[in-house]
Amino acid sequence: MNAGPASKIPPSAWDVGLLDPLSAGTGAAEITSDSAWLQAMVDVELALTRALIDAGLVPEEMRDVCDRLADAGSLDLAAIAAEGRGGGNPVIPLAKHLGVAAEAVRSGASDHIHVGATSQDIVDTAAMLLASRVAAEVLAQLDVLAAALAELADSHRATAMAGRTLGQQASPTSFGLVVAGWLDATLRAAERLADVRAALPVQLGGAVGNLAVLTGIASARRADAASSAVVDQVIAAFAGRLGLSAPAVSWHTDRLVISELASVLAAATGVVGAFAIDVSVLSRTEIGEVSERLGKGEGGSSAMPHKRNPVTAILVTAAARRAPALLTTLYGSMLAEDQRPSGAWHAEWQALRDLERLCISAVTGAASLAERLDVDDDRMRANLDLTDGLVFSERVTTILAEALGKRVAFDLVTKASHESVSTCRPLQVVLSGALASEGASDELRQKIWAAFDYSGDLGQADSGIDRVLVKYRERRARAENTGGAGNTAGAENTESGTPS
Amino acid sequence: MNAGPASKIPPSAWDVGLLDPLSAGTGAAEITSDSAWLQAMVDVELALTRALIDAGLVPEEMRDVCDRLADAGSLDLAAIAAEGRGGGNPVIPLAKHLGVAAEAVRSGASDHIHVGATSQDIVDTAAMLLASRVAAEVLAQLDVLAAALAELADSHRATAMAGRTLGQQASPTSFGLVVAGWLDATLRAAERLADVRAALPVQLGGAVGNLAVLTGIASARRADAASSAVVDQVIAAFAGRLGLSAPAVSWHTDRLVISELASVLAAATGVVGAFAIDVSVLSRTEIGEVSERLGKGEGGSSAMPHKRNPVTAILVTAAARRAPALLTTLYGSMLAEDQRPSGAWHAEWQALRDLERLCISAVTGAASLAERLDVDDDRMRANLDLTDGLVFSERVTTILAEALGKRVAFDLVTKASHESVSTCRPLQVVLSGALASEGASDELRQKIWAAFDYSGDLGQADSGIDRVLVKYRERRARAENTGGAGNTAGAENTESGTPS
Amino acid sequence: MNAGPASKIPPSAWDVGLLDPLSAGTGAAEITSDSAWLQAMVDVELALTRALIDAGLVPEEMRDVCDRLADAGSLDLAAIAAEGRGGGNPVIPLAKHLGVAAEAVRSGASDHIHVGATSQDIVDTAAMLLASRVAAEVLAQLDVLAAALAELADSHRATAMAGRTLGQQASPTSFGLVVAGWLDATLRAAERLADVRAALPVQLGGAVGNLAVLTGIASARRADAASSAVVDQVIAAFAGRLGLSAPAVSWHTDRLVISELASVLAAATGVVGAFAIDVSVLSRTEIGEVSERLGKGEGGSSAMPHKRNPVTAILVTAAARRAPALLTTLYGSMLAEDQRPSGAWHAEWQALRDLERLCISAVTGAASLAERLDVDDDRMRANLDLTDGLVFSERVTTILAEALGKRVAFDLVTKASHESVSTCRPLQVVLSGALASEGASDELRQKIWAAFDYSGDLGQADSGIDRVLVKYRERRARAENTGGAGNTAGAENTESGTPS
Amino acid sequence: MNAGPASKIPPSAWDVGLLDPLSAGTGAAEITSDSAWLQAMVDVELALTRALIDAGLVPEEMRDVCDRLADAGSLDLAAIAAEGRGGGNPVIPLAKHLGVAAEAVRSGASDHIHVGATSQDIVDTAAMLLASRVAAEVLAQLDVLAAALAELADSHRATAMAGRTLGQQASPTSFGLVVAGWLDATLRAAERLADVRAALPVQLGGAVGNLAVLTGIASARRADAASSAVVDQVIAAFAGRLGLSAPAVSWHTDRLVISELASVLAAATGVVGAFAIDVSVLSRTEIGEVSERLGKGEGGSSAMPHKRNPVTAILVTAAARRAPALLTTLYGSMLAEDQRPSGAWHAEWQALRDLERLCISAVTGAASLAERLDVDDDRMRANLDLTDGLVFSERVTTILAEALGKRVAFDLVTKASHESVSTCRPLQVVLSGALASEGASDELRQKIWAAFDYSGDLGQADSGIDRVLVKYRERRARAENTGGAGNTAGAENTESGTPS
Repeated sequence: MNAGPASKIPPSAWDVGLLDPLSAGTGAAEITSDSAWLQAMVDVELALTRALIDAGLVPEEMRDVCDRLADAGSLDLAAIAAEGRGGGNPVIPLAKHLGVAAEAVRSGASDHIHVGATSQDIVDTAAMLLASRVAAEVLAQLDVLAAALAELADSHRATAMAGRTLGQQASPTSFGLVVAGWLDATLRAAERLADVRAALPVQLGGAVGNLAVLTGIASARRADAASSAVVDQVIAAFAGRLGLSAPAVSWHTDRLVISELASVLAAATGVVGAFAIDVSVLSRTEIGEVSERLGKGEGGSSAMPHKRNPVTAILVTAAARRAPALLTTLYGSMLAEDQRPSGAWHAEWQALRDLERLCISAVTGAASLAERLDVDDDRMRANLDLTDGLVFSERVTTILAEALGKRVAFDLVTKASHESVSTCRPLQVVLSGALASEGASDELRQKIWAAFDYSGDLGQADSGIDRVLVKYRERRARAENTGGAGNTAGAENTESGTPS
Repeated sequence: MNAGPASKIPPSAWDVGLLDPLSAGTGAAEITSDSAWLQAMVDVELALTRALIDAGLVPEEMRDVCDRLADAGSLDLAAIAAEGRGGGNPVIPLAKHLGVAAEAVRSGASDHIHVGATSQDIVDTAAMLLASRVAAEVLAQLDVLAAALAELADSHRATAMAGRTLGQQASPTSFGLVVAGWLDATLRAAERLADVRAALPVQLGGAVGNLAVLTGIASARRADAASSAVVDQVIAAFAGRLGLSAPAVSWHTDRLVISELASVLAAATGVVGAFAIDVSVLSRTEIGEVSERLGKGEGGSSAMPHKRNPVTAILVTAAARRAPALLTTLYGSMLAEDQRPSGAWHAEWQALRDLERLCISAVTGAASLAERLDVDDDRMRANLDLTDGLVFSERVTTILAEALGKRVAFDLVTKASHESVSTCRPLQVVLSGALASEGASDELRQKIWAAFDYSGDLGQADSGIDRVLVKYRERRARAENTGGAGNTAGAENTESGTPS
Repeated sequence: MNAGPASKIPPSAWDVGLLDPLSAGTGAAEITSDSAWLQAMVDVELALTRALIDAGLVPEEMRDVCDRLADAGSLDLAAIAAEGRGGGNPVIPLAKHLGVAAEAVRSGASDHIHVGATSQDIVDTAAMLLASRVAAEVLAQLDVLAAALAELADSHRATAMAGRTLGQQASPTSFGLVVAGWLDATLRAAERLADVRAALPVQLGGAVGNLAVLTGIASARRADAASSAVVDQVIAAFAGRLGLSAPAVSWHTDRLVISELASVLAAATGVVGAFAIDVSVLSRTEIGEVSERLGKGEGGSSAMPHKRNPVTAILVTAAARRAPALLTTLYGSMLAEDQRPSGAWHAEWQALRDLERLCISAVTGAASLAERLDVDDDRMRANLDLTDGLVFSERVTTILAEALGKRVAFDLVTKASHESVSTCRPLQVVLSGALASEGASDELRQKIWAAFDYSGDLGQADSGIDRVLVKYRERRARAENTGGAGNTAGAENTESGTPS
Repeated sequence: MNAGPASKIPPSAWDVGLLDPLSAGTGAAEITSDSAWLQAMVDVELALTRALIDAGLVPEEMRDVCDRLADAGSLDLAAIAAEGRGGGNPVIPLAKHLGVAAEAVRSGASDHIHVGATSQDIVDTAAMLLASRVAAEVLAQLDVLAAALAELADSHRATAMAGRTLGQQASPTSFGLVVAGWLDATLRAAERLADVRAALPVQLGGAVGNLAVLTGIASARRADAASSAVVDQVIAAFAGRLGLSAPAVSWHTDRLVISELASVLAAATGVVGAFAIDVSVLSRTEIGEVSERLGKGEGGSSAMPHKRNPVTAILVTAAARRAPALLTTLYGSMLAEDQRPSGAWHAEWQALRDLERLCISAVTGAASLAERLDVDDDRMRANLDLTDGLVFSERVTTILAEALGKRVAFDLVTKASHESVSTCRPLQVVLSGALASEGASDELRQKIWAAFDYSGDLGQADSGIDRVLVKYRERRARAENTGGAGNTAGAENTESGTPS
């Protein structure tokens, strides 16, 4: 794949990632670039022609023409982009350029290019083809992320850390369980994305969605069969060749397909954003429980020699902050009037591409982050000391409640907590004294004293981690059976540039 | 259900729908009101206590207490709302008020209320319970809508109308096929909403998500069993009683559940918005192909006696314009740090409720609109005359292309179209003349002449309509088997206010 | 102001703030409630009638009728809300109800109510009236906030704290300067809001924006003057009575007014959100540099006796997270077609009200938070110790660069920083040793040793704080001269319910 | 300006406008491209060094070095973009590359590059410099648009057209007045954008906003003056050289500047979007009152030879649909914690650039559209006939109300309107008959008969148009005095690439 004669593209208009450092080294730019779009549109145009051949509506000789037109790199991308202004979309000039290229291969061949399709058929189907490639990449990266998180969850089952709510230390929890939460979200996002990917449909409706032209051609050229059967055959071949599905009717102004795709891409981005924001909080100088393992030249500052910033966590968070607004535009475009709307459709193109790029970049970044996450067990433990035992207040209240009743226990611990804070004495000591003066049994006092222990019960951490790891292993096993980690979608689109 | 002593609620702060006329007469306000929320939170608290009884952790005598606390109408809603300020959420005062009420029934009973749960467990589970009720209402209304659309699609298979793209008449299509497009989107939105509804989970994690308190209680009170087995039993009973599912781990800061729910509610709203905006366009004075059948006093204007506005279509469109932005807030809240975030969670509550209200209002409005849609077949046909035959240009190009090749045909019709416009003569006449002077065969000229006919081929309209009607009938059949139109979710939550 | 017969409002539909704890005790609900809206619409209708009297188009006797209709509390709010469904907005039933009330006062009086206006004139002007009241409240609260911040900035000029970038301690700064940043933003947001408030226009265009009816009436009833002069007189009186301005032309589908208002409300909300999020970060258990002074029963948890959550900071942050999405809806409604659009206008009402409520709640909460902010100077200093001197790396690099050049200094400190981290020795010690072995002068070594001092130079903290305090005092002085703290808008609308 | 060695930029990652046809031929890509960004950052770095020279902190010899580094085209854009990943922003590699280039010019020169600044100072100031250039371009295009609209408004004062509300013909209005509404919005958007542009500030705070390094350098190198005075001098020179203003304090986490800029760019986009959507509605086949004058090859379809689509109107509408969501991201980034936030800042970069591109493209497109707007007066008049006179119902009601009272008149016309519709007879005839049978005076009947006249009174059309044209001419006069149409901002930034 190449972008055609570079000399025709004005250099001053290039975006090469200066403002998007997270995408560097990911597939984000390449999979969704204008070149990739052009190639996808060519793939779609040729899949249509080949489907027409399959259905006996276009002569066999066109197969060879299709094979020779398959590389979009020979088209003039810059010219097609510029000429798109006239008709408001890139397909009108593309069809023209492709027609010229076809004629150069074989006279009359252009008659069999872009037959029965409207511009939107090509753009929407190309969008689905690209979305399928984007989803495959996202799924692959989600699998890398899941593998790293599974490892972390399993190995940190018993690593005690302060659970924090509303920014305050609340009760001890297990770091492994926290990771299991990230992992569970990752697995569910992947599952849903795979489902959506597997159902991505082609678009083929013709000018107003009823395939009138194709019907006319089928009637004229295939007297042997009902036109609706022939048309169904074309759609099936078109979809099959592209690894997409066939919809019940065309969806020119039914944009559920787009909004659903967008919602899962944004969800995947949100899931990794939640992981990244946690890393960024836990990396704070004053917390320091995890850190991003940095390479040479990473995480630095232009002014402060000592800085070790959690760069990836921050860039993933930034990407995740941008995704939700793109949903607004894409869901807004569901309000599409007529048989092709006056603006809503055009507003989707860049918004969807931006979302795809954010998603690939964020998920790839998160996968790398998970693989480079250093965990400081000692610091986690040390932080649990910061509150002089207050972080165990819930635990001791539970124990006391069994003996004294819930209300009495709560009030007792509340009072002791305040005393602990105002006198700067450990809650363990204060509470023990209070129980003594209340005449509590020695057994109860010993039980309470022992509760201030990090290696103590971390609740359902183990069973929660196990449940998520089972899900993870099932997904892996499934993936291995179907021959690709994230790719549960099955059908691979193999049309791109390949002779058939 | 009642809202408690009305005198305590300052009247000047009431919202009664003045700025939300679409919700009047729908379930939007009632299903999601503060009263309904209070009831749902009470349902959840009591389901928890009952689940603890089921698991042998709380005495059987509490069943009776639960039964007697079941009506939230006896609580002081206004006081609970006002006291929520102190802790930042309504559960802290609710647990207190409920505890007082429990003590009034039976001394010591408050010890068994809100056991092992954190505020977020109650709010989130109540949100799921309400979401399930909201979804049931939306599904019921989507079914009403689908029935009306199915009827329209079937009866207007052969109703020719101008297919319009980018605001311009493009080619003839079938109104029935247009309706089938609306119906297909409706069916898919319903299917997906039903799936999401069926998977709505309870939330039960305790303070930091590891159920430490419940684990402690299980250890203390059920020496006979492993604490994790007992805790699982509690969760299963809790979920079962509420008709919700049990998650792998708690999802306090994994908000995929919320974003997925939001995405399907917004999708349903978008689907009906697309239908409404089409109605509103087709109702324009200059188009007039459909109209909303209005009752007395509807659709009027305060200043213009003759106005017959498509009020419902407009209000549904307005609702659909507001839904996408709410997604942004809700997806934004996926960036939730720690074990409970400092703001992201709180930002969800009203945004989700607003979205639920918009969805119920919009879908209910759309269902009513579909049932009151007058279709003016004559006007559709008359509008097809407006372009002096240009709307048939694609059709005749297709026919000519079979005889003359695609490019020649396209150029010929383009030229004839321009001549038709500049000379104000019908394209049929101009083209016939042009073919004559080009020496076309009589057969071809007759074929072209005949193509300017509204009753002519409408492409794949019939097969498309049929495919969608099959889906519709399958859904109906499925619904009838499971005993409720839209409700494919199965489990009904029957906890609310019912003695057990 | 009261809401009319409460019995008519179905209790189950009340929202009383259960999901919006931040609004409790603020003006948010009351200033923007349905009752307040109804009153504002009545104010506008009566201001119009009075303006018509002023211009000699309506008989003087109507003044008394207007006075007696002034209290919207006598109207049936619930009925008007419900009847709004028919026409799609509340003005159609309001005009009817108001007409009936007018007739009850004086026969024929209804002929002079709602004359020349269209529904949108009343709704839009009432929205402006309410916006003016909202803005006054927001400005008053911003002034409370500014006063508290000014006090904090001034008294904490020399309070050294760790400046943090990307979550990591970077260099020392002054807490007073940080506060000055919050204050500067507060002052600029207030300034801009006051400007926008001062320019809020009435809406008066009649059915299609050309005031045809009013022109006809002026021609018929004021033969003595040009109709355009009379109409201008009406608009001037209408605007004057409401404390609003007169626009060049009606703005039914030119929604810049709304988007500009929304942008400043969202900006004010964002400014206080930034303050709140900083408080919430600085309140973290592991940082603990500031805390929200809590009253009894505030900041607690339902499960953890020791919790002291920064509740207000969190609720303000939550409000600020919701504001931006509302902008999307309101800016989206700028795409308003025709002379009144089919949905875009209706979509504004609740979105604007929601934004107003969020803004009042957030700003009021922030003002209270600033007044209750405890600052822990010792903890700030202690946190500066956490990095073993790394936080001074930039400072010492600057000093070294003067002697050794920038690059050499940067590399030297980078190396020393790494050694300090890996050997757990203070940077001060490591660096001193390194300088010694590099043969640095004693003077330089002493300078560097002395630089590790919290009371050292905090850069431009003082001059920055002073610049902002000057702005603050100028605003206060201006406000005192114009007789109202934040209210630089001048004209107060005094129409509401007041006999004239 | 050029983009450096093209060979280093992977071709497959280029975006050249394929999905953004509206930007073709506008300044959108060029003004905001990565090359432009790199140049702006270089401009800022050099302005800082020059300001330091001005203030006596850096040797005079550096002026020549600055002059020779001025062209960013000699830097390796692709390498800088790729290296940005390590530190999370492009300034860290830029400072390095620029330092190397400086050393190549003069040994030791790199010591005087990027002095006292943090990465954010450079990125934010470059963003302001670019924003100023973007705003200048937008203002220039808004002036082109305004000129075209002023012409249209003036020449179509008396062109009667149907005013439409909620999609229905309501009352006659003047097309000139409709245009005056578009023009008024355009003028106000321009006014506000010019104000915001004139106040764009530099950012200069150093690592944590207190300019500690610069203060240290000033102390060390300028013993003659107070360091705060020297620092102020640097900031003033820095701002002056870039044509930007100096803020009270640094605004690293006070993002009002960005949100305000974004709000005016989105507002300008919304204003032209409203114009475009009106054109697109009025261009509908069935309305046909205006059309976009198309060049050869414009507005066509790939399948329908006759199509003449209002391409520009549609693309401008599409752009305007995308702008509001970007506001959400940018206002969301106001929630920026610490002295540099962990993601919020990074999320701004692309969102602001996208908004700038949309704004330039949309405004340029709208200006072109206004210049190519064909108005069909006859069709406007013909459309007024479609309702058989109902469109005059308000007018005749007003006249009748003078004689019969408002209620009687309204009821009479309502009844006649219904009869007109049901009997398909003109309202003029029906009403005349009704008046006769009610015994109305001949004078009244004649007055009513005469009211059904398109050339009749169009209300305040003339005075409204005049008021807006006065504003337009004042703006033009002001612009001519200050030597640039839209550019009321005064100071031009002339730093870019210019020796000083």
